[in-house]
Amino acid sequence: MKLWTRFKTAHGRIGFGLLKGDLIHEHRGSLYDEPIATGATIARDTVDLLCPCEPSKIVALWNNYHALGAKLGKAAPSHPLFLIKPATTLVGPNAVIRRPAAYAGKIVFEGELGIVIGKRTSNVSVEAARDHILGYTLVNDVTAAEIIGEDENFAQWTRAKGYDTFGCVGPVIAQDFDWREAELITRLDGAERQRYPLADMIFNPWEQVSRISQDMTLLPGDVIAVGTSVGVGSMKEGQLVEVSIDGLGTLANRMG
Amino acid sequence: MKLWTRFKTAHGRIGFGLLKGDLIHEHRGSLYDEPIATGATIARDTVDLLCPCEPSKIVALWNNYHALGAKLGKAAPSHPLFLIKPATTLVGPNAVIRRPAAYAGKIVFEGELGIVIGKRTSNVSVEAARDHILGYTLVNDVTAAEIIGEDENFAQWTRAKGYDTFGCVGPVIAQDFDWREAELITRLDGAERQRYPLADMIFNPWEQVSRISQDMTLLPGDVIAVGTSVGVGSMKEGQLVEVSIDGLGTLANRMG
Repeated sequence: MKLWTRFKTAHGRIGFGLLKGDLIHEHRGSLYDEPIATGATIARDTVDLLCPCEPSKIVALWNNYHALGAKLGKAAPSHPLFLIKPATTLVGPNAVIRRPAAYAGKIVFEGELGIVIGKRTSNVSVEAARDHILGYTLVNDVTAAEIIGEDENFAQWTRAKGYDTFGCVGPVIAQDFDWREAELITRLDGAERQRYPLADMIFNPWEQVSRISQDMTLLPGDVIAVGTSVGVGSMKEGQLVEVSIDGLGTLANRMG
Repeated sequence: MKLWTRFKTAHGRIGFGLLKGDLIHEHRGSLYDEPIATGATIARDTVDLLCPCEPSKIVALWNNYHALGAKLGKAAPSHPLFLIKPATTLVGPNAVIRRPAAYAGKIVFEGELGIVIGKRTSNVSVEAARDHILGYTLVNDVTAAEIIGEDENFAQWTRAKGYDTFGCVGPVIAQDFDWREAELITRLDGAERQRYPLADMIFNPWEQVSRISQDMTLLPGDVIAVGTSVGVGSMKEGQLVEVSIDGLGTLANRMG
């Protein structure tokens, strides 16, 4: 399995490469267009890992796990249900999640698998979609829960999930990752809060990319947050949320 | 009133400048950071006008006019209600609006004022917001109307308004435009379908920029589509929609 990372050095230089053990093998060019190994390596623990891609948008799904749909009493949708989190929500591993200045309510973590798009994608079949996925990553789809239902006529999904720092993504993009056997775990201050199998998805990643590509053009680096399952809960100032999938590592972010 | 345009020449060169009568006075540098006149002029009728800015996102409001709220029987919201149209929806003046391949239902035009953001904007006051607006433009917020209510549990605003070519913006960005006295008119194949005063807005442009900047960071070039009022209707293949405001010109787009 290839693991792509982006990083910033102590001198502020930003680069990317393949993570192998404790070393990052640097690459140049575009991550999305046959990047070339420079031959240089850099120790992982000397750099800050960044969000491994630079999406133009995050497409975030709602009601995409059978278990959560059953718990909420909602029927499985006939098409992926989604909103867009703007790129300004993005932060990488270990970045601080900040409470919006004007919001004192409940903030929740949602541990999710993320699909990273590898090439321009419009109207592709489920079969072709596989070839448009660069790889997979982890997402904490942070949500200001009390905003959603604040107006009785319009569910404010975009606003609730669109605040700066509410899109935690990383630490790597894994290629050749098989989601069908994997389990996602979310821990809050070390205590397990979510553990669910990715195979319980209503629309699997290939179906999502195909369906969403009928709705809008996806661009290289765009992320689809595939939705969460049961166990979502609130996080308080100072608490640490860790989202993990075997093979994708752990995405850790603390609330500031 | 200064009118900024972006254009593409017959040779494919993209430039921008100030429109004065039939001439574009070319500028260089960044539109958002003290652009400099090159001294060159180019005849407007020898180039194609493009969307005058390159937004990272379009923030589109719902229920922001008293007249439309009254017609729909909806109370005025206490905060702007919005979704995000991705940048992939964008097209400029005279571009063709395309029906999504997988959608045979009703497609509607929504003539709107657009606010163009001039600088990075986060948590600004209503007073300070004025200085963050580069200028104003016209928007046709095209919508696949039957998508919105397709799922009983989740209003699909983003999907309905997120299709490629569903964000028509232009033809100019007007600086020193006073929206308070202006009226927006939308014509379908020449017949007037919308005519409403901008002063009927629930949240005015300065309030919108301030409020939305509490929710997310707005970037230079980002567009806020301020919402539409009464008179929205469906458009069919081959029909021409023209959105006009005195001083901002006319945004004309035909459905292909």
